[in-house]
Amino acid sequence: MPPRRVIGIDAGGTKLLGGVVDEGLIVHHRVHRLWRGSDRRDTLEIFVEAVEEARAAAPDVTAVGFGIPSLVEPETGVSRWSNHLPLDEVPFRDLMSERLGLPVVVDNDANVGLLAEHRSGAARAVRHAVFVALGTGVGSGLLLDGSIYRGATGVGAEIGHMVLDLDGPDCPGACPGRGCMEALVSGNAIGREGVRVGRERPDSLLGRRVAADGEVTGGLVTELAHAGDAAARHALEVIGLRLGAALTGIVNVLNPEMIVIGGGAVAAGELLLAPARSVVAERALPPAREIVRIVPARFGDESAMLGAALLALETT
Amino acid sequence: MPPRRVIGIDAGGTKLLGGVVDEGLIVHHRVHRLWRGSDRRDTLEIFVEAVEEARAAAPDVTAVGFGIPSLVEPETGVSRWSNHLPLDEVPFRDLMSERLGLPVVVDNDANVGLLAEHRSGAARAVRHAVFVALGTGVGSGLLLDGSIYRGATGVGAEIGHMVLDLDGPDCPGACPGRGCMEALVSGNAIGREGVRVGRERPDSLLGRRVAADGEVTGGLVTELAHAGDAAARHALEVIGLRLGAALTGIVNVLNPEMIVIGGGAVAAGELLLAPARSVVAERALPPAREIVRIVPARFGDESAMLGAALLALETT
Repeated sequence: MPPRRVIGIDAGGTKLLGGVVDEGLIVHHRVHRLWRGSDRRDTLEIFVEAVEEARAAAPDVTAVGFGIPSLVEPETGVSRWSNHLPLDEVPFRDLMSERLGLPVVVDNDANVGLLAEHRSGAARAVRHAVFVALGTGVGSGLLLDGSIYRGATGVGAEIGHMVLDLDGPDCPGACPGRGCMEALVSGNAIGREGVRVGRERPDSLLGRRVAADGEVTGGLVTELAHAGDAAARHALEVIGLRLGAALTGIVNVLNPEMIVIGGGAVAAGELLLAPARSVVAERALPPAREIVRIVPARFGDESAMLGAALLALETT
Repeated sequence: MPPRRVIGIDAGGTKLLGGVVDEGLIVHHRVHRLWRGSDRRDTLEIFVEAVEEARAAAPDVTAVGFGIPSLVEPETGVSRWSNHLPLDEVPFRDLMSERLGLPVVVDNDANVGLLAEHRSGAARAVRHAVFVALGTGVGSGLLLDGSIYRGATGVGAEIGHMVLDLDGPDCPGACPGRGCMEALVSGNAIGREGVRVGRERPDSLLGRRVAADGEVTGGLVTELAHAGDAAARHALEVIGLRLGAALTGIVNVLNPEMIVIGGGAVAAGELLLAPARSVVAERALPPAREIVRIVPARFGDESAMLGAALLALETT
């Protein structure tokens, strides 16, 4: 009997990644979409299109799992609130199940990313771990005492919205906060820092791109850094040091064994993680910092897609 | 048969409060001590003296519970690290048990404060609560899914050492951090803010005390505020707004039903809590902020003393 297959969908703040995934976590087919505008109906339509494309390639799939950048109530599958997509108060699970005619499960994107890393990735055999997905925004999932922690009403685990700078800038997106970690340490923040550093160093590769285009993405800053540009490396180091300050607080509050960094920005690798580790090693409380490991996600920026599929495999 | 009685000891960053407590949480006798210097042996001697004074008043006590401002390993009763007392790597439970000849239990002061508020105080019938003790420093305890959360090695729950201001001042005490909540929102921080505001407003009651004495305590700022001094009220409001920013992060990460504010600074009451609530209501993520209540501790600044006694009653 061939292994059972499902579709896993990871919806980020900028794009959607989907895959046909089997029980061995092998990905057989991938689909990609970019969001168009901020209309709710169009956004839901893109979800449906992506699933239908994957299903055309694998008609045997038995269920669909979604990881969405929303505060999701686990029992009802309702998307209560999203910082990046027009998904406030949307009965996501029931809507999708009706449109697709398949069993559907849905959870927060970072919660399912954590699920994949805990079941088969970096956080296997760990009981206390924090998963941080650095993308357009900052998602996170908390594994506490061996279980995924959701809070009193299922909308917790948003470490991207810890206050990291009391008088800091407004948080991007719909978040009403100021100085949130997400305003300072996301993939988008890497782009903003790239612009700042590029203007200070106009002769660098980064500086020339900033002068030519007016802006740069976090992805471009990372590419230039890997190519050896000192200015781009410096921009990543600034963000890595801020990441370290945020993780210092998390280490002191949650005393985890492991922090797993995923999401698109994990492409920066040690250029981001090494400065973050140095801050935690210096500033976190000694008994907590001595046991924590800060590691990249095993599944890179595919943790949430694989985790969404795993959720479907485990619960449908 | 008369109710069983034990001794509960709450050791804060500045002083010790002890009590003879019975099963109905009635306090029959209180003892007080101030720390002298930072010698470990002298500090441990003060603990012994305080217990012996209480025991002289109630020779029938059967055990002693300690809440200490340390990261305590629950299984061993070892004090791993303390920001305020010379108790790093001290086998506290075994030392005290040997000196006192009584069963001894020990835990972090804020964890036992939470225990008292959960069993019989503000957080009864709640499954997700955060206890914040604002005193010399900031202690905290986390009730997650109905259990006190300790972290992977028992040294977590230190929300006072979340980073609240990325480029903020060095954390007071032995903490190697910078811009920690404790540096900005403790009882001591109220005193520092009082000095700043008093210098700006030399004609206020607060300003005259600052001019006369060079410094003020958080307790004095609170007294002057209750007496109606606008400058002192403003100092408390500044700290209350910062408290609100810290709690905003905690609400977003932990999605608690309740936050209980205790410790000495709770004497400020609504002058501190009202501005904190206003920040959370404005800046926390909507689905999390709508369910959280921010309330004063039922037991005021005695939660930890009562909780230490409760721990002894429940586990010896």
